Amino acid sequence: MDDAFLYQKVERKVRALIDSGALGPGERAPSLRGLSKREGVSLATAMQAYMALERKGYLESRPRSGFYVRARTANRATVPRPSRPRAVPSKVKLGDMVSTMFAVNRDPGVVSLGVANPSPQLLPAKGLLRATAQVARHQRLPSLEYCLDMGAEELRRQIALRAAELGCTVAPDQVLVTSGCTEALAVALQSVARAGDIIAVESPTYYLILQLIERLGMLALEIRTEPDSGLDLGALERALDEVDVRAVVSVPNFNNPLGSLMPEDSKRRLVTMLAERAVPLIEDDIYGDLAFEQGRPGLSKRYDETGRVLTCSSFSKTLAPGYRVGWMLPGRYLDEARRCKRTMSAASASLPQLAVAEFLRAGNYDRFVRRVRSTYAEQVTRMRAAVLEHFPDGTRVSNPKGGFVLWVELPRGIDARMLFERALARGVSVAPGALFSPANKFRNFVRLSAGLPWSDTVEGAIKTLGTLTRGLQRRSA
Amino acid sequence: MDDAFLYQKVERKVRALIDSGALGPGERAPSLRGLSKREGVSLATAMQAYMALERKGYLESRPRSGFYVRARTANRATVPRPSRPRAVPSKVKLGDMVSTMFAVNRDPGVVSLGVANPSPQLLPAKGLLRATAQVARHQRLPSLEYCLDMGAEELRRQIALRAAELGCTVAPDQVLVTSGCTEALAVALQSVARAGDIIAVESPTYYLILQLIERLGMLALEIRTEPDSGLDLGALERALDEVDVRAVVSVPNFNNPLGSLMPEDSKRRLVTMLAERAVPLIEDDIYGDLAFEQGRPGLSKRYDETGRVLTCSSFSKTLAPGYRVGWMLPGRYLDEARRCKRTMSAASASLPQLAVAEFLRAGNYDRFVRRVRSTYAEQVTRMRAAVLEHFPDGTRVSNPKGGFVLWVELPRGIDARMLFERALARGVSVAPGALFSPANKFRNFVRLSAGLPWSDTVEGAIKTLGTLTRGLQRRSA
Repeated sequence: MDDAFLYQKVERKVRALIDSGALGPGERAPSLRGLSKREGVSLATAMQAYMALERKGYLESRPRSGFYVRARTANRATVPRPSRPRAVPSKVKLGDMVSTMFAVNRDPGVVSLGVANPSPQLLPAKGLLRATAQVARHQRLPSLEYCLDMGAEELRRQIALRAAELGCTVAPDQVLVTSGCTEALAVALQSVARAGDIIAVESPTYYLILQLIERLGMLALEIRTEPDSGLDLGALERALDEVDVRAVVSVPNFNNPLGSLMPEDSKRRLVTMLAERAVPLIEDDIYGDLAFEQGRPGLSKRYDETGRVLTCSSFSKTLAPGYRVGWMLPGRYLDEARRCKRTMSAASASLPQLAVAEFLRAGNYDRFVRRVRSTYAEQVTRMRAAVLEHFPDGTRVSNPKGGFVLWVELPRGIDARMLFERALARGVSVAPGALFSPANKFRNFVRLSAGLPWSDTVEGAIKTLGTLTRGLQRRSA
Repeated sequence: MDDAFLYQKVERKVRALIDSGALGPGERAPSLRGLSKREGVSLATAMQAYMALERKGYLESRPRSGFYVRARTANRATVPRPSRPRAVPSKVKLGDMVSTMFAVNRDPGVVSLGVANPSPQLLPAKGLLRATAQVARHQRLPSLEYCLDMGAEELRRQIALRAAELGCTVAPDQVLVTSGCTEALAVALQSVARAGDIIAVESPTYYLILQLIERLGMLALEIRTEPDSGLDLGALERALDEVDVRAVVSVPNFNNPLGSLMPEDSKRRLVTMLAERAVPLIEDDIYGDLAFEQGRPGLSKRYDETGRVLTCSSFSKTLAPGYRVGWMLPGRYLDEARRCKRTMSAASASLPQLAVAEFLRAGNYDRFVRRVRSTYAEQVTRMRAAVLEHFPDGTRVSNPKGGFVLWVELPRGIDARMLFERALARGVSVAPGALFSPANKFRNFVRLSAGLPWSDTVEGAIKTLGTLTRGLQRRSA
């Protein structure tokens, strides 16, 4: 039986005990060893089940003591509140904060929780470099020549196959290869909007989306989100009625920084709502493969009947950030996207494209992703628990359903930029919340990346952040 | 003694015979065999000397008969006339012609003289792929991770070293790695100008520069050129006095499509003239390494005292177009360029950067370039001779000093777009002249790429073009 399936079975059994009241709030759950014995599963599987229950707020782990049933209300309060963005579009002015964050990221003396990079140890280095060597040997000239003009054919075929598995019927020649998801988003925005146009974005949203809007001279209109389900469709509908929105950018699967997951029904409603108004949807799915639970969530694109959904993604969070292999399904904007890509960067590097295609073709990707996503689930769970343990009361932490970032709401009055600076002086980097809004909101938020394997160093960094936050709290009190 | 030096010695001796009148116009030059014997050099060196003299218009080769001294006036008339652009800035509207040209370029049944790509046979495939494999083995993680944020350090060091050899003192941290020269130009334009600004360009100029200006909503102001020396500085100065030019884009070394070379004195004057007016100069040096004569021409950047020159280049015309390794020296615009690059594509692929750095470090680049540039010189010379032989009277062809493209002025009244279409139907692609101007000028020009090794197929394609041109001439008469 598949491992992933096994832990879910165990998880359901324990949940039933809690739901039935057989295990009450505050009670200690069976020990890992006991559970493993009783259910006839490995210790690792029992641990996986408990971690899933912890993520969902059923259990909490206490250091050197085990897992306890949590009071459900207490759990709800740990999640950040829904965002309350302004109702008017605004110019984006992020300034140099992003540059500073990236600059310190390269410092080996810094525990980098600021930039959302996968840890090098978690990349499939061996397999991917083997595929690369193979391609360099057997496809010498294609490795050196341009992959004009849509990208390597086999890669586009593999991407189309994967899209089909997610319910999207696209032909390989409807797939445009890009230099990472960054370029895909840049091309998508330029394909559907121009300077002065209003772009609706989630509040909070990935800072790169805001930086692109800033650079392209567009305006950002923030839309309210729910911490669990992402974009608030009611709020979006009201905005569409009141403002001339040219395009919507959404991260339905594991919004960065929220980690929220938009339910399938909402995805369908979102696409229909926009199709009725002929407004394009730019869907960023870069974290889609890193779902913590069994079953990869679908794409909004599958409900796209008018070709107005532009799906953007890449292999940067799973295989190799440095390969810069991204892609987009530009729908009816294909010609425009293709022209834009060609003008701005001609083509993407060929060898990495061919290597990723080979890695996918050989079936290595799915195997790898199945493994790594439970690793990230564990890292996120542990970091979340550590934040709740070490940060002062009143701190709230997102409960991500995938990806590897945490969105932390600090007690009111704490200035996250100050935390950023003090943490840096102590060798820890974080992403200040203000980066995730054009209007300088989220001043008491930070985003933490759980891309690094859990270790004493990482735990120490969380402790340091907790201590510094307490210090700032006293100061602001 | 260095081979390149040797042929120049022979060349000078023969030229002296012509200049002195010892060899008169129309007379047969000594046979290759005779020359080789007399001068104690190889047949190849004698051939090199004659080809250089042919390029410079001293000799002409006649099929199965050898080399003859040319009437100097006849030679002058074969070069296209100086351009006469309009004096007002204009919007760029190239439409889909470039897309069509690229689309047919991939067709294996087409002899591609349209796109200026180096032939795959002329790339250092073995050496570069060996460097790539070595990097993948010894720098596993750097190959997979981001090269944030300026690009791979060793590559930037190597580029700085090469710039120093050309008289430019730049530190590695003043070099920004880009995805090819295309991205370098895109970043450069966005770093110094915005929508609505006027950009002065050479007339004719590389179509990508025009496409970028179009996409970024800027306006192009064409400046007159001389077929041999490129940009007319007098014309530029008048334009600067009359129009609010925000930046100048120039290709001083082997303008594409002219193949012209701006003299060192003019480069200095150009930089000074712009510095006085605080106008930035974007210098595209992509063909700089492919000089036909001994001695690599310098960069305008070497005269840059105010940091207003942004030099852009890449290894796409020499090592591997598909590696997408380009770079820029953005001078005082470094911060802006860096932010722009990061926002639009995050980073360039790491493995190709590290591989090119290794190839440079090992000293393989200079050796390779020395060899390949004489190959291109030969291909260009042969194609030029074939055009003069097969095209109707009144055809003029540029006399490039480097690179591998020819700029062909067809007799007046001939519509190059029609030639483009008819040639395509016969399996030959060319670049219509209208692509090289925003104002739809150069309607009776085509650019031919001599990137392919000379062969019966290529010669046949030139013959076909000649025949088609004659047909169009009869039609227009």
